[in-house]
Amino acid sequence: MRIQIDRLMADLKELGSIGFIPGQGASRMAYSPDFVRGRDFVRKRMEEAGLSVQIDAVGNLTGLLPQAQGTGEKRIAMGSHIDTVPMGGIYDGALGVLSAIEVVRTLREAGWKNRHPIEIIAFNEEEGNVIGGTFGSKAFAGAPLETPMLQKMKAFQLTEEDVRRCKRKQDDYLLYLEYHIEQGGILEAKEKTIGIVEGIFGILRYKATVSGKANHAGSTPMELRDDAMEKTARIITDLMDTVRAETESMVCTVGTMTVKPGAVNVIPGETQFIIELRDKTMTPMYSVMEKLKKRWEDQGLHLEEYITQPETLCDKKLCLIAENTAKELGYPSMRMYSGAGHDLINTSFLMPGMLLFIPSRGGISHRYDEYSAPEHIEAGAEVLLEMVQRIDEGAFEREN
Amino acid sequence: MRIQIDRLMADLKELGSIGFIPGQGASRMAYSPDFVRGRDFVRKRMEEAGLSVQIDAVGNLTGLLPQAQGTGEKRIAMGSHIDTVPMGGIYDGALGVLSAIEVVRTLREAGWKNRHPIEIIAFNEEEGNVIGGTFGSKAFAGAPLETPMLQKMKAFQLTEEDVRRCKRKQDDYLLYLEYHIEQGGILEAKEKTIGIVEGIFGILRYKATVSGKANHAGSTPMELRDDAMEKTARIITDLMDTVRAETESMVCTVGTMTVKPGAVNVIPGETQFIIELRDKTMTPMYSVMEKLKKRWEDQGLHLEEYITQPETLCDKKLCLIAENTAKELGYPSMRMYSGAGHDLINTSFLMPGMLLFIPSRGGISHRYDEYSAPEHIEAGAEVLLEMVQRIDEGAFEREN
Repeated sequence: MRIQIDRLMADLKELGSIGFIPGQGASRMAYSPDFVRGRDFVRKRMEEAGLSVQIDAVGNLTGLLPQAQGTGEKRIAMGSHIDTVPMGGIYDGALGVLSAIEVVRTLREAGWKNRHPIEIIAFNEEEGNVIGGTFGSKAFAGAPLETPMLQKMKAFQLTEEDVRRCKRKQDDYLLYLEYHIEQGGILEAKEKTIGIVEGIFGILRYKATVSGKANHAGSTPMELRDDAMEKTARIITDLMDTVRAETESMVCTVGTMTVKPGAVNVIPGETQFIIELRDKTMTPMYSVMEKLKKRWEDQGLHLEEYITQPETLCDKKLCLIAENTAKELGYPSMRMYSGAGHDLINTSFLMPGMLLFIPSRGGISHRYDEYSAPEHIEAGAEVLLEMVQRIDEGAFEREN
Repeated sequence: MRIQIDRLMADLKELGSIGFIPGQGASRMAYSPDFVRGRDFVRKRMEEAGLSVQIDAVGNLTGLLPQAQGTGEKRIAMGSHIDTVPMGGIYDGALGVLSAIEVVRTLREAGWKNRHPIEIIAFNEEEGNVIGGTFGSKAFAGAPLETPMLQKMKAFQLTEEDVRRCKRKQDDYLLYLEYHIEQGGILEAKEKTIGIVEGIFGILRYKATVSGKANHAGSTPMELRDDAMEKTARIITDLMDTVRAETESMVCTVGTMTVKPGAVNVIPGETQFIIELRDKTMTPMYSVMEKLKKRWEDQGLHLEEYITQPETLCDKKLCLIAENTAKELGYPSMRMYSGAGHDLINTSFLMPGMLLFIPSRGGISHRYDEYSAPEHIEAGAEVLLEMVQRIDEGAFEREN
């Protein structure tokens, strides 16, 4: 039994063409007309594959294949999201949903009598540019919604009751498999085809303020200055050095900067920026921030932790099944972590899960030139197909 | 012969009250109704002091005291500006103009028979928030106007012909004395009353761009990043260290920063900022920038020099006269440079000149709490009065 890569690639290209402008990328943000057109396309493919489809109150699309034999088994869920960032690529999210459909098509064409119901999930608003990141899967799993989400969803006539109605029953689900592009450069650099994702990085975000003393840029000698910008440069340099020394896996980003008063001829009196840390566990990140605080607090650095998202662990047995499957199918694989967030963070509130990666060329994502090679796409879909068969035959329940 | 400090302080306070909001400062930007009200006040004081006043096409106010004896001598000019930054202090600029009026009042009350005509100049738009920095004295001296000035002045119905008509004749002037608050903290730190300014720093400004590669802040490991923000922090740190090592006098400011794309969860692909250097001469500043370029150019630093303002030298003989005067009057003085620009930069195109400083409390300027002590104000005005007498008696011509 093998998936048909040409068929899968055609689906990826067709969905990717909806909302696509050449040289700019695909824009199918949640609730936009192009998002709805894309979802209609996926819905049609689900129906053609024999799935009974449903769209919940927040816009998640699911397709269910009932058990072909037996009764009362829990569902094997597979999927990802079908919304995009503004001017994004055609693989991020779409790959997981369309590959799951291809897996079901292949199983049915081969006459596979599934013992477990199989559910394919196409989450809405994973990207978060409309209501907030992974909004669809949060609603699906009953995960708490942040205040800004509660505010923004009002513009779409969504009530908290609507969101509550989306929450699925834990007892219905056995596990969740998400197949996704890596969006980083690790697999490419290590020349591996399959990434066995053991977990998703936790995230810490701090609002940082560095206070100095605004003054005349000409008449204040260097030794009489308290320059917030110079201190900020030294603090960020120290931060990056400390992060690199702390763990091999931790990443750190300062992606924004406000300088006050912000004139070329005035010594900055204050800077404001966001420090984002991500790592496998939270402890080393707190350790970095403690060190930074200790060294710079009395020089005007003020830190306010404002986003704390603990790490998510993938199911160990599922990782082992994936690893064995990849090996037996002859695909070079490696264990890794995901630095990017995924819907799996939320589905983990409901059920065990596991994330499969394939390489992204140049580590590029969220851009029109996001690209994964068809042979890698095929490899991942083959691993997914084989895993579903093994799990359907009881591999996961046996291991547990 | 002594100036009357109470009378001078009253004038400073009265002019300072025009456009002043308590706790916010004085706002008399060029061409504003409050600027015009302020200029009317100064004009009245000039007329009361026996000066014949004139307002030129760009709004500079001058008051001329003809020779009381002899004919054909060149003018001794004194002055500064009477516009302010938005929410500025009451001393910046006003001190030089009102002290010059007090000097003339004192001379006339003492029956001084001036051998040289004495001209007091109250420049318009020194601060540059309306048309451009030192616009008034540029027009007065016939200095070239930058393109943005030429564009902005149109809004005030000013033509290039108007500006040309403001240019004074070099042959009419002997020299220019400007008495100003320091706007820095050097005199205060060194406990000196009088600053003998030998020159005004030259200025170099560069548009700096640091290129990196924008990418996902979670999925891109530290070793695969090309983070424009991290490089920028290291470049600014290196820049500041290099400036401090190059000369004692050089100052460097990075007062603005743009980060692209500017999202908390995207590794910056580019930063843009302005590097401003000021020093006594241009060579060491170019040396710093050459070193910076050498070390960082192949890591994505691009530099574009866009403002080049050479240093201005005050007249050596005038500095000596000022130094001797301060010494003989018993005021502790020091030689220094001005990091801030002044109208004297432009008057130097027409005639030799010299800048006198007194301390600014805390080095603060361009703010409502800008402050200079009355005893320092008096000391500077006394030095100015004594210098004018000596120059009028031929000290400057003798020295030359």
